Amino acid sequence: MIIVMDHRAGDDKIEAVITRLEKAGFQIHLSQGVERTIIGAIGDKTHLGDVGLEAMSGVEKVVPILQPYKLASRTFHEEGTVIRVGGLEIGGDTVHVAAGPCAVESREQVLETAEIVKKAGATILRGGAYKPRSSPYSFQGLEEEGLKFLAEARELTGLLIVTEVMDVRTVPMIADYADILQIGARNMQNFSLLREVAKVDKPVLLKRGPSATIEEWLMAAEYIMSGGNYNIILCERGIKSFENYTRNTLDLTAIPVVKHLSHLPVIVDPSHAIGKWRFVPSMAKAAIAAGADGLLVEVHPNPPEALCDGPQSLTPVNFNKMMSELNQVVAAVGRKMP
Amino acid sequence: MIIVMDHRAGDDKIEAVITRLEKAGFQIHLSQGVERTIIGAIGDKTHLGDVGLEAMSGVEKVVPILQPYKLASRTFHEEGTVIRVGGLEIGGDTVHVAAGPCAVESREQVLETAEIVKKAGATILRGGAYKPRSSPYSFQGLEEEGLKFLAEARELTGLLIVTEVMDVRTVPMIADYADILQIGARNMQNFSLLREVAKVDKPVLLKRGPSATIEEWLMAAEYIMSGGNYNIILCERGIKSFENYTRNTLDLTAIPVVKHLSHLPVIVDPSHAIGKWRFVPSMAKAAIAAGADGLLVEVHPNPPEALCDGPQSLTPVNFNKMMSELNQVVAAVGRKMP
Amino acid sequence: MIIVMDHRAGDDKIEAVITRLEKAGFQIHLSQGVERTIIGAIGDKTHLGDVGLEAMSGVEKVVPILQPYKLASRTFHEEGTVIRVGGLEIGGDTVHVAAGPCAVESREQVLETAEIVKKAGATILRGGAYKPRSSPYSFQGLEEEGLKFLAEARELTGLLIVTEVMDVRTVPMIADYADILQIGARNMQNFSLLREVAKVDKPVLLKRGPSATIEEWLMAAEYIMSGGNYNIILCERGIKSFENYTRNTLDLTAIPVVKHLSHLPVIVDPSHAIGKWRFVPSMAKAAIAAGADGLLVEVHPNPPEALCDGPQSLTPVNFNKMMSELNQVVAAVGRKMP
Amino acid sequence: MIIVMDHRAGDDKIEAVITRLEKAGFQIHLSQGVERTIIGAIGDKTHLGDVGLEAMSGVEKVVPILQPYKLASRTFHEEGTVIRVGGLEIGGDTVHVAAGPCAVESREQVLETAEIVKKAGATILRGGAYKPRSSPYSFQGLEEEGLKFLAEARELTGLLIVTEVMDVRTVPMIADYADILQIGARNMQNFSLLREVAKVDKPVLLKRGPSATIEEWLMAAEYIMSGGNYNIILCERGIKSFENYTRNTLDLTAIPVVKHLSHLPVIVDPSHAIGKWRFVPSMAKAAIAAGADGLLVEVHPNPPEALCDGPQSLTPVNFNKMMSELNQVVAAVGRKMP
Repeated sequence: MIIVMDHRAGDDKIEAVITRLEKAGFQIHLSQGVERTIIGAIGDKTHLGDVGLEAMSGVEKVVPILQPYKLASRTFHEEGTVIRVGGLEIGGDTVHVAAGPCAVESREQVLETAEIVKKAGATILRGGAYKPRSSPYSFQGLEEEGLKFLAEARELTGLLIVTEVMDVRTVPMIADYADILQIGARNMQNFSLLREVAKVDKPVLLKRGPSATIEEWLMAAEYIMSGGNYNIILCERGIKSFENYTRNTLDLTAIPVVKHLSHLPVIVDPSHAIGKWRFVPSMAKAAIAAGADGLLVEVHPNPPEALCDGPQSLTPVNFNKMMSELNQVVAAVGRKMP
Repeated sequence: MIIVMDHRAGDDKIEAVITRLEKAGFQIHLSQGVERTIIGAIGDKTHLGDVGLEAMSGVEKVVPILQPYKLASRTFHEEGTVIRVGGLEIGGDTVHVAAGPCAVESREQVLETAEIVKKAGATILRGGAYKPRSSPYSFQGLEEEGLKFLAEARELTGLLIVTEVMDVRTVPMIADYADILQIGARNMQNFSLLREVAKVDKPVLLKRGPSATIEEWLMAAEYIMSGGNYNIILCERGIKSFENYTRNTLDLTAIPVVKHLSHLPVIVDPSHAIGKWRFVPSMAKAAIAAGADGLLVEVHPNPPEALCDGPQSLTPVNFNKMMSELNQVVAAVGRKMP
Repeated sequence: MIIVMDHRAGDDKIEAVITRLEKAGFQIHLSQGVERTIIGAIGDKTHLGDVGLEAMSGVEKVVPILQPYKLASRTFHEEGTVIRVGGLEIGGDTVHVAAGPCAVESREQVLETAEIVKKAGATILRGGAYKPRSSPYSFQGLEEEGLKFLAEARELTGLLIVTEVMDVRTVPMIADYADILQIGARNMQNFSLLREVAKVDKPVLLKRGPSATIEEWLMAAEYIMSGGNYNIILCERGIKSFENYTRNTLDLTAIPVVKHLSHLPVIVDPSHAIGKWRFVPSMAKAAIAAGADGLLVEVHPNPPEALCDGPQSLTPVNFNKMMSELNQVVAAVGRKMP
Repeated sequence: MIIVMDHRAGDDKIEAVITRLEKAGFQIHLSQGVERTIIGAIGDKTHLGDVGLEAMSGVEKVVPILQPYKLASRTFHEEGTVIRVGGLEIGGDTVHVAAGPCAVESREQVLETAEIVKKAGATILRGGAYKPRSSPYSFQGLEEEGLKFLAEARELTGLLIVTEVMDVRTVPMIADYADILQIGARNMQNFSLLREVAKVDKPVLLKRGPSATIEEWLMAAEYIMSGGNYNIILCERGIKSFENYTRNTLDLTAIPVVKHLSHLPVIVDPSHAIGKWRFVPSMAKAAIAAGADGLLVEVHPNPPEALCDGPQSLTPVNFNKMMSELNQVVAAVGRKMP
């Protein structure tokens, strides 16, 4: 940690900062520059970082040097993590596509979609039984009944199931049905929920919050990991920017950046990021080219009838087309489809 | 709702959209323009808005006309709402200041701060017993013990208590201690939590999420109101932007906008928005000049020792100074201090 | 154009709006909804859109229906435009890579870099002789001398030259040396400069401004096209967002969106968007997978010695590696390298 | 400057960085931490900062310590600068309001508006004769004829004139008419234009770019100051964010921040920031409460007839009302109106 002192700060103020840092266990390096005094503090910021240095008189700014996350960092684990779940390896050579409807609407809809996406090459079925909706007046999901339909689809197709948890009270029940638990973007910093999924023996798909920096996202992963669950799949799904032609701005650069900073696998959800089905296939291919370990894509047998997110859902025909184009790009970057 | 058809869409596609809308109970107005066909659909969007029109072939875009919130809108309730709690009126002529530490750290700290802010003119004591922290390694709060200290401070000073709820399971317990329940910025779209506070007979201070549009913020209020709790105090606390000299960008224009769109009272938290105590008093004054009904300000007897958010906390001396300056601005906009 | 009236607006106000629109030559469709009156105005917005309707009493909002650009829109020109310059076709099947240093620093540096990028497969040499620098104390470019070095490099290698224009007064002179004129991101709405390059018989590479929406970007293209120069190559180079690990946020979704809205070719500059060379190759591949017609990449023989943007420049070794990986992705999306 | 080395960087890489820094004239402080080696480099970054350290092998990041601006910084000039122009003092105790139409449309319009704003208490007349418009099809200004009308209005009312310069070629001519030259938001980094106004003996009103950080804004001021013109008035006018109910997000916190970092006066343009007249008076009051030295406000005798920005223009009646409310707030913060 580097403490930059105000150019008017006298020796007493510099001394006070040093005393405080030394009491907190830091080793000190003092640099008296031409225009500024700079104090280097060496030690373990994760435990002592909360010392309120910026509130001390004479301190201009505090610059952290170490990343605030440990377990999620590549420094901690040099090799990329491969998550093994239900026979699949996520984060390895094979690219996996999770596909399905935004919301589970009926038994028929789920079974039909499962067959379609299975045939097209997906290995995981997505579908929400509990839906976080911006409006209290929108369809909120079929709840446990929806989970039963998903389980039935797994039975029939062999697809794994990923579905969202929204409430600490239903985490154990949902974990009984699902293969992978999803933390939605709006709950990325719902710390109670993060602690709850940390106790479950299922991988967690952790979506990036729409206003989360990459560091905040990795800190959310750190919450789950520090609670004991190391099987985290990160999922980029767009961030908020001033551009509003698309629903969010898909930050694909986050993929190589996360791969550089962390050992965790990372996949991409182009459907929610963009909000318009028309642009989903292009961005699915771009995500793979950028190095993503997989995709999360919305597919609906009849998008105009969807109870949720119809405009961003691919039809079966378009999904098939996307999957066959994807094959080329996957091979081009030296990876393979299942 | 206005549906703009693609310029290449033929009559069959236009017909399909109209059929779908009529089946959903909308009345139709068709305008054949020089370059586009536009379909006006008149009806109650809150119930039928989920028809997936944008997924229909030939539809270029769908433009909603009505606001998606009802109970929170000024159309629904022309007069501004005044919330009565513990003898205070929030949203009336009097401007209220809630002040106190970010986190409850000890009995002494809370009681000392309560005396200080009370003497300076605050009417509400803020302090977190459950703390949402970006890092799992940071101080997470004293939990129920902290609530007891807050209650004791109320006993001694007569200040009301506002404190944050983070977990659906502790809402009833916290509601036993607190006068006002706070939903933090990161939980603004934690819909389970919104539904839980909707069942409690205490006002809710609803912070704007760092990436929430004003519409999304009012929809979060709508969740609580549609669940039965109409006593919502909105709180602007900064949004994310590219400017990173400050922690967030305080969007003061949201105040007159919310007053225009909604009948709910709105207060401002300059401390979290800015992250640097030095700029808090200026923005507190600006917030009142912009029409805010109150403030939420962090005060700590010794900011450098704070376990949380020291850099943005005012010392007692600076808080006193701010309060006396505030008095002038409050009077200048025709309002009063308690 | 749709005019939504305030729910309290009486007939007189509705009448006033209609009168105004009819006077401006619009045809009117009136829809009296349950809660709102909506006025549809059909006519040519490009000429009459400046009628200040939103300033009229009783008007809640005005929703434009048509895009404000004409010449740049795909409606105007259904086929994608292919720009022919110096034997190259930009916007066709072949993907072109423009590469070179941020700034022209010396004859040796330019000639050496030109040889390197030519051998690796680039067809265009980039290099700034006039540099827009955030600081007045930074190196500002070699000016005309730099242009001579670029011209010499073209002579020797056959590469085309793209270089930036910053000042209306030097446009004709620079156009004598360059094959393609670049408008930098910070000048995207320098309308005097746009009008000046409109008069020149050279293609213009128009970078997206860091805070420009896609619509504003296409409007900037419209400026040049309406001035008589139809040969515009759009270039996405990152937008500002709250994420600051990277210099900007590369908005790759803009590529399929621009391809949908416009007929103009679009290329991507990952170097400026990201600011860190390490992530450039991944995003170059992603850009091509997303449908870009080419790339603009910074290469320097010795990045640590670069007078400008060293941290984002690829070394010759890394550029070579990127180009050979790129080949695979180009083929995977059905295109070819020169 | 602090250089953080990658945790895997060996001694050779550390040595290479040190050698390079020493050659560039920096003094070195080396700190070998538990997990990172950190190199402190003391010296004058303004001249040597362009050394491409981040491009060197083994360098993780470079953290600048000193601000990149000198002349614009408060360190350089501890006292706030007061700009004296035509008998007015901008940046002193008195708050000045510049008001008038977006664009000069006719002699009558300018003279009428001048009388109105003068009577209401404004001391400066604003009005564009050269207009930067997003669309090439919009009204582009009356050019020199408009400047003559402004000059005539000054003659009649004694108001000073502020008007925009867009093109380096017309700067001297416009400077003959205007008292203050305005650099518009979109030209904040048009460095040719900044250098041109640096040569003129008239104060410059420098608007913040919609995507400019405070540091970039001060660097633009530094350009003009380093060119010889020290009379800069900064003007906050809103930045781009995801919130699109308003045209931009008015960043009022920038006011106390600029006052802390710089000695230059700063005013606020709420009209362009918000885009809707209804919210302008509230934000004008908030700007003054936040510490602004003045305001730039759009007033039009008949906003619905305005050729430009009607929706954000105040009517004479609303401007009068705003000015009388403003008086109270100005007094409340210990300042005065002319």
